[in-house]
Amino acid sequence: NSEILKLINERAVVVQEIGRVKEKSGVNRYDPLRERTMLDLLKESNHGPLPQSTVEHIFKEIFKTALELQVDDQKKALLVSRKKKAEDTIVTVNGEPIGQGKPSFVFGPCAVESYTQVAEVAASMQSKGLKLIRGGAYKPRTSPYDFQGLGLEGLKILKQISKEYNLGVVSEIVTPGHLEEALEYIDVIQVGARNMQNFELLKAVGSVNKPVLLKRGISATLDEFVHAAEYIMSQGNDQIILCERGIRTYEKATRNTLDISAVPILKQETHLPVFVDVTHSTGRRDILLPAAKAALAIGADGVMAEVHPDPAVALSDQAQQMNLKQFDEFYESIQKFMNTHHIHA
Amino acid sequence: NSEILKLINERAVVVQEIGRVKEKSGVNRYDPLRERTMLDLLKESNHGPLPQSTVEHIFKEIFKTALELQVDDQKKALLVSRKKKAEDTIVTVNGEPIGQGKPSFVFGPCAVESYTQVAEVAASMQSKGLKLIRGGAYKPRTSPYDFQGLGLEGLKILKQISKEYNLGVVSEIVTPGHLEEALEYIDVIQVGARNMQNFELLKAVGSVNKPVLLKRGISATLDEFVHAAEYIMSQGNDQIILCERGIRTYEKATRNTLDISAVPILKQETHLPVFVDVTHSTGRRDILLPAAKAALAIGADGVMAEVHPDPAVALSDQAQQMNLKQFDEFYESIQKFMNTHHIHA
Amino acid sequence: NSEILKLINERAVVVQEIGRVKEKSGVNRYDPLRERTMLDLLKESNHGPLPQSTVEHIFKEIFKTALELQVDDQKKALLVSRKKKAEDTIVTVNGEPIGQGKPSFVFGPCAVESYTQVAEVAASMQSKGLKLIRGGAYKPRTSPYDFQGLGLEGLKILKQISKEYNLGVVSEIVTPGHLEEALEYIDVIQVGARNMQNFELLKAVGSVNKPVLLKRGISATLDEFVHAAEYIMSQGNDQIILCERGIRTYEKATRNTLDISAVPILKQETHLPVFVDVTHSTGRRDILLPAAKAALAIGADGVMAEVHPDPAVALSDQAQQMNLKQFDEFYESIQKFMNTHHIHA
Amino acid sequence: NSEILKLINERAVVVQEIGRVKEKSGVNRYDPLRERTMLDLLKESNHGPLPQSTVEHIFKEIFKTALELQVDDQKKALLVSRKKKAEDTIVTVNGEPIGQGKPSFVFGPCAVESYTQVAEVAASMQSKGLKLIRGGAYKPRTSPYDFQGLGLEGLKILKQISKEYNLGVVSEIVTPGHLEEALEYIDVIQVGARNMQNFELLKAVGSVNKPVLLKRGISATLDEFVHAAEYIMSQGNDQIILCERGIRTYEKATRNTLDISAVPILKQETHLPVFVDVTHSTGRRDILLPAAKAALAIGADGVMAEVHPDPAVALSDQAQQMNLKQFDEFYESIQKFMNTHHIHA
Repeated sequence: NSEILKLINERAVVVQEIGRVKEKSGVNRYDPLRERTMLDLLKESNHGPLPQSTVEHIFKEIFKTALELQVDDQKKALLVSRKKKAEDTIVTVNGEPIGQGKPSFVFGPCAVESYTQVAEVAASMQSKGLKLIRGGAYKPRTSPYDFQGLGLEGLKILKQISKEYNLGVVSEIVTPGHLEEALEYIDVIQVGARNMQNFELLKAVGSVNKPVLLKRGISATLDEFVHAAEYIMSQGNDQIILCERGIRTYEKATRNTLDISAVPILKQETHLPVFVDVTHSTGRRDILLPAAKAALAIGADGVMAEVHPDPAVALSDQAQQMNLKQFDEFYESIQKFMNTHHIHA
Repeated sequence: NSEILKLINERAVVVQEIGRVKEKSGVNRYDPLRERTMLDLLKESNHGPLPQSTVEHIFKEIFKTALELQVDDQKKALLVSRKKKAEDTIVTVNGEPIGQGKPSFVFGPCAVESYTQVAEVAASMQSKGLKLIRGGAYKPRTSPYDFQGLGLEGLKILKQISKEYNLGVVSEIVTPGHLEEALEYIDVIQVGARNMQNFELLKAVGSVNKPVLLKRGISATLDEFVHAAEYIMSQGNDQIILCERGIRTYEKATRNTLDISAVPILKQETHLPVFVDVTHSTGRRDILLPAAKAALAIGADGVMAEVHPDPAVALSDQAQQMNLKQFDEFYESIQKFMNTHHIHA
Repeated sequence: NSEILKLINERAVVVQEIGRVKEKSGVNRYDPLRERTMLDLLKESNHGPLPQSTVEHIFKEIFKTALELQVDDQKKALLVSRKKKAEDTIVTVNGEPIGQGKPSFVFGPCAVESYTQVAEVAASMQSKGLKLIRGGAYKPRTSPYDFQGLGLEGLKILKQISKEYNLGVVSEIVTPGHLEEALEYIDVIQVGARNMQNFELLKAVGSVNKPVLLKRGISATLDEFVHAAEYIMSQGNDQIILCERGIRTYEKATRNTLDISAVPILKQETHLPVFVDVTHSTGRRDILLPAAKAALAIGADGVMAEVHPDPAVALSDQAQQMNLKQFDEFYESIQKFMNTHHIHA
Repeated sequence: NSEILKLINERAVVVQEIGRVKEKSGVNRYDPLRERTMLDLLKESNHGPLPQSTVEHIFKEIFKTALELQVDDQKKALLVSRKKKAEDTIVTVNGEPIGQGKPSFVFGPCAVESYTQVAEVAASMQSKGLKLIRGGAYKPRTSPYDFQGLGLEGLKILKQISKEYNLGVVSEIVTPGHLEEALEYIDVIQVGARNMQNFELLKAVGSVNKPVLLKRGISATLDEFVHAAEYIMSQGNDQIILCERGIRTYEKATRNTLDISAVPILKQETHLPVFVDVTHSTGRRDILLPAAKAALAIGADGVMAEVHPDPAVALSDQAQQMNLKQFDEFYESIQKFMNTHHIHA
């Protein structure tokens, strides 16, 4: 065994050297021809006892291991990772620091339908001392014949509400072309689940100086989610909030399956604030409250939920939005849960 | 519109009559020939304006609706449902009432490996005032060449531990043939995820006078889960604890995906206690604690987790069991969470 | 029963009238206030025997049913649907009619890496009489640090290859901003799986006069897939090829799970040609051939697969691309399968 | 590089030796204490440059690698694997060799409801020269209140039909306790999807001398499926037919998702015949025929489908069974497909 140990120590040195050589030649300067040449040379100089095929196999494994080490290093080196930056990133919106320990809340209607509709919700939020409102102006919808949102008109309504009720505005942008125009109207750019791997959009929002709320794709792995955030941060914008919003599974009792474990994993792997959208993850008004409690208990930095003055006649997502009375009860219960439970402590 | 209302009220009467006729003829006395005859007669007596195919379609819908109403009624009538029994069922094991508001805890090794191994965990549990230990004697394993558990010998170890440390024992039974023998050794019969639809086993455990912990199948819908419990209860045994233990999805960052929303839904739909197995749902020691907090916050009646004196050398599930020191820290944190947050209130 | 029949016929008339009224008021001119008013009026005029809550429930069901009928009608009315157009749409690219009965084939490297690399594949394809080559110039990659494609330079290489080897070029466009530039270089615009619900991109490619190959999203339902195609067609472009490329499931023996049943369902529901990408759906070189046979047997209009001169050193998707020798064998086997099996008959 | 090669060759020798030592001590005689001791000793004798934690990590990796090698060896050694037995296993039932190249077919009703019902199907099958009928006597149903099958009476009906129409009978057994009784009535024991990991049942059917048709679990991986077959074969019974029957995914356009790629993978990895159950995998009568063609094209040894004299009034699975006329058309089309395509060649 002690001989193996010595061998392993020697091997480690070699692996490190390989790593250094690779690094010098550059991660993106990957040279397939050189790899092929190396393989051919190695096979020539092999005199057993291992057969050629095994040598090729083992060296492919070594190259792969080296690559994986590099991937690991890269993961360490990801700008969004804890390994790169140990302390929590705090994103400040409308004077509210997100990710600082005290949970944040984002409420508002699924879609902006009219000034009155949003104002009713905003008034209720203001009375509760809340700071962040959401509302969709550009709505990505499955069918081209569904309500597509009010567009620029919707953004203008949000801006007006923002001023009148002192609320920071979160609203979704769906394509790079809309970004510049939208910047003057909103405070947080939402990138929706369907666009989590719309890489050109990610790069575009990464190039502006405005917080981004990035939703997890409907069947994105956590690794893909983290890399989507990296697309944004690699362009210079580090004001990113991650948002778990349920994943698509076989279970249809809920609209999506809230992957609650994603929260502590994302908190461990990245330094970014993590929200939970309880509306889209469950799609059921009747379990929004327990889901929000679970989100806070497991360490989420914030909770998002949809509120509409009259959900029964909403243009989208009727079944899952709270009305104003339900919103009052919901928020009171959450406050009680947090106070007695000192979650913001 | 008022005419439609009248029409609908008339139609409702007819539907009710159909329902009553169906009921008289018995749910299980379903008569396909009569249905076919009815369809043929109706088509004969149809003089438009609706075409024959539409009449057949509409009546099939009516029959289906009637059936769905019956299914709804059946759901109402399910013995496990809240509609059948509004108040919570309390399952008492070893003097500990489960489902009464104060969360219960079940800890213990994945598999019983030796008396010493279980005793070490039991001593730690006794010192914490815990009452329920778990340990597998019959282990369902993917490969026939994996460790299959100590069987009867394992049950005997559990029984001895039970007496010495005053712990109620939860252990899995995998086939009706083992049941009788096992009854004298264990306090709660576990039906594992792989056997959630082993209906003969469900019927067998439903026929004995012993609490059952029923785990959700690895890709079972909540509806299937509830019906599996109904298999047990329909045989007379109402001492059932449901246990969410994660579902199989595309995401591999966790061993399974903890479907936390299942807890409030099961609490709404049934009157049974609901546990969360944080070990099998996450498969990651590093997030057991936050997952347990989320489970308690969302309303789970209990939490299950695996503890092993030396997980690194365990015969199964090495990566996910806590060692005794981790167990101490875990339990202390949970106690603190519950105390400051009044969850046991 | 005959009375019920009469009642149902009357009710059908009413439903139709409701439908017509709704239609007049416009699908997008949905008026929530009017619905609320109707509900209130109905409850006022209800004198039993049904209770108010039941009346509200039943009318909500009627509204919903009416909506569903409209959805059904809409489905009937979808431009991509068979109900709208019974005969098959034929998309002609580089003189090759796609969807006319004789299966089409698209081969080529995952990514364009160099002129030489593509030319080697193109020469092999030309010698087989093939007409359609694929190659990615803009590569959507999980990590921002992975090879992102040669971009415009890649498109220029493809254009040159296209002329020299008389091949129609299929290449992916990932954002509306790249579209205009790309149009002069490529013959078929590919919309990738990650962008299946990038609705602005769909609208953009729907506005140009160039065939589109639309890949199914990684966890898109068939309904969502069909509606994504409708986004394109609703803008005027009916030259659409659908492409099943595997869905994300728990099973990891294959990269994705080839949902082969999607082919006959899409052929039934739409009039568009349907391809199967055997490379991305399986991710395994060793089962490309049987998967292609299954695709052709089940009625696919074409098969896509990746070919690379030296897959081991490819910049992406090394494990799943065929080399030129494997390509020869694959194509010969497919030809043999089709000849003896008269699949093009 | 040549030094690395030498090092690797030396290391390979050591790994082989470790393997041999492990083998001598027996796969099931795994000794955790010894492993712990080895780790401690190694750490004592380590004098750098690698730190202790790294040494422990690397050796854990080595142990793991060694275990994986053993797993690989075990996989090689699985009795069901091609590596253990290169040539195809042929299962002969009622004079029909299954797995010999010519596809087999199993038809019949979902559940045995009456003698007449089964006889009608049997007569149709006999007229087509078919040899294998299916029919459920014990029906595993989600609800305890659904039709549970005729049990023993059903088996007796099947036996009678078997004699009168010269058909081999395939019928499901759901618990070890039913096995002995059933043996005299049926020719192939079916183990259903819900029982794929009912290991006691697998061991029981592995101990009798009767062919077994093993269905893939509703969310079983191929690896789990292969190991379930190994449970049977490890008890001595090698007459096993594997049956892909669709997996549970998010997509609801089909009842399950037919994982067609499973067929060539199972044919590669095992020497057992592989069937495809087109009824349960699709759940849609309208695509049974194309699905069956795909199954045969991809190399399945047989196809299963449900046929019922009057599906509209069936006690289970109404929507997916073919009636006799549809069955005639289906079988004729399949025959034509096989003849023109020489699939039985």
